[in-house]
Amino acid sequence: MRARVAPVGSSALKLSAKQDLPGGWEAGGFAQKLAYVYARKMDVINRGLGGYNSEWGIPAFEQMFTKDKTGTHPKCKLLTIWFGANDACLPFSNQHVPLDKYQQNLTWMVQALRTPSSEYYAPWTRIILLTPPPIQVDAWAQHIAERDPPKDMDRTWENTKAYADAAKEVARELRVPVVDAWDAIWKAAGEETLGLTRFLSDGLHLTREGYEVVYNELIKVIEKEYPELHYDKLPLILPAWDTVDPKNPRASVVSHYVDV
Amino acid sequence: MRARVAPVGSSALKLSAKQDLPGGWEAGGFAQKLAYVYARKMDVINRGLGGYNSEWGIPAFEQMFTKDKTGTHPKCKLLTIWFGANDACLPFSNQHVPLDKYQQNLTWMVQALRTPSSEYYAPWTRIILLTPPPIQVDAWAQHIAERDPPKDMDRTWENTKAYADAAKEVARELRVPVVDAWDAIWKAAGEETLGLTRFLSDGLHLTREGYEVVYNELIKVIEKEYPELHYDKLPLILPAWDTVDPKNPRASVVSHYVDV
Repeated sequence: MRARVAPVGSSALKLSAKQDLPGGWEAGGFAQKLAYVYARKMDVINRGLGGYNSEWGIPAFEQMFTKDKTGTHPKCKLLTIWFGANDACLPFSNQHVPLDKYQQNLTWMVQALRTPSSEYYAPWTRIILLTPPPIQVDAWAQHIAERDPPKDMDRTWENTKAYADAAKEVARELRVPVVDAWDAIWKAAGEETLGLTRFLSDGLHLTREGYEVVYNELIKVIEKEYPELHYDKLPLILPAWDTVDPKNPRASVVSHYVDV
Repeated sequence: MRARVAPVGSSALKLSAKQDLPGGWEAGGFAQKLAYVYARKMDVINRGLGGYNSEWGIPAFEQMFTKDKTGTHPKCKLLTIWFGANDACLPFSNQHVPLDKYQQNLTWMVQALRTPSSEYYAPWTRIILLTPPPIQVDAWAQHIAERDPPKDMDRTWENTKAYADAAKEVARELRVPVVDAWDAIWKAAGEETLGLTRFLSDGLHLTREGYEVVYNELIKVIEKEYPELHYDKLPLILPAWDTVDPKNPRASVVSHYVDV
């Protein structure tokens, strides 16, 4: 199978419009933007799990990276890990994960792929951590108050910030490249709560513009840390049509085999 | 690996904006729209090969469906085959494929998956053929005249129509469901050349509105012919977050295993 880039994570990859679907596959979403630039180079397999925290992410992760019957791993070249937005819920919430446990969970995921004795060992998989984006407290409070039944406010700005910092700490300790979505969005918002409106649809989930900011940061990190995986560096699968030899198309198509 | 829906074909899956990339992965494109509705149900693996005809499509097809070292096929649940727009080029063009050869090629692809003795035999793969969309001759003539160097006009309305009819004939003979993109777009255009402007960007490639028309037809065909593969009928991979048991998350995530 073709090499993959797999975004794995929580609601940051979720659809903004339809709350029941996971994603980033909407027009302008994170997965769509990646699939566009990696078209015919790497397949984007989106494993965004809306509402998940890093604790629930671990058994999900295990299933995603389990070897098949032949002992072959899914061939994931680039993995982005993006949990934290739900971990950062306040302790009364079912989604809450304590800060140190959140860090342990991220560490577990990275080490699962990096440790030779791990059954998920995959030294060919390049990893990038993402921090949760900031939240716009008033918008989110209003959003969950309008639910039926209404829910208590379950997040604070400061708490999400603490989880973003914690993710960066893990990245630093494990020497994993990090996309600081929190910082990028907060700066784009002019470091003002009201400025967040353009980037967050309901105070929590990203808008098109929010995805754009995070996507741009991700591409910058790929270019700097894993330049060989930048989309401009990867070969096209199968030859471009105007390089096919019309007199001997089979030979020229086959000669260009790069793992479809 | 997760079951796939794989659109395979030529420039009809290509990007409209960037001529050098294949796709349908643009916002509003064919692959993006499918990935959105099949999110967390089936992965969309886009094998649109811009500029390809059905003749060049065969060695590409063989590579896509070759068994791996263990004898396992790629697990493709739904395959759409969409060639013809380039086959229908006039005979002087390198992309031209004679009408009867075009029909043989489509037949070969379908039979490769359906014939038990075929090395590509995959009885679990549901197949849908698509006809090439109509072309807007004046717009395409202008488009290729503006190239550097300018190219001779290589397509006619009638010829593309003949290839669309030929694809339908193959579908009828082999009893493969067909999405008549030609007819759907032509009807949406009020059966008038000028009406095509909304649906074709350069006289040949689909706009967002063009993709919308074809996508809607495809979903109708799936619903009628392969209802078990309609996105509403497929289970979500991994449980929805609000059904995870917070007291025993691992057990409840694992219990819901459906092949990630």
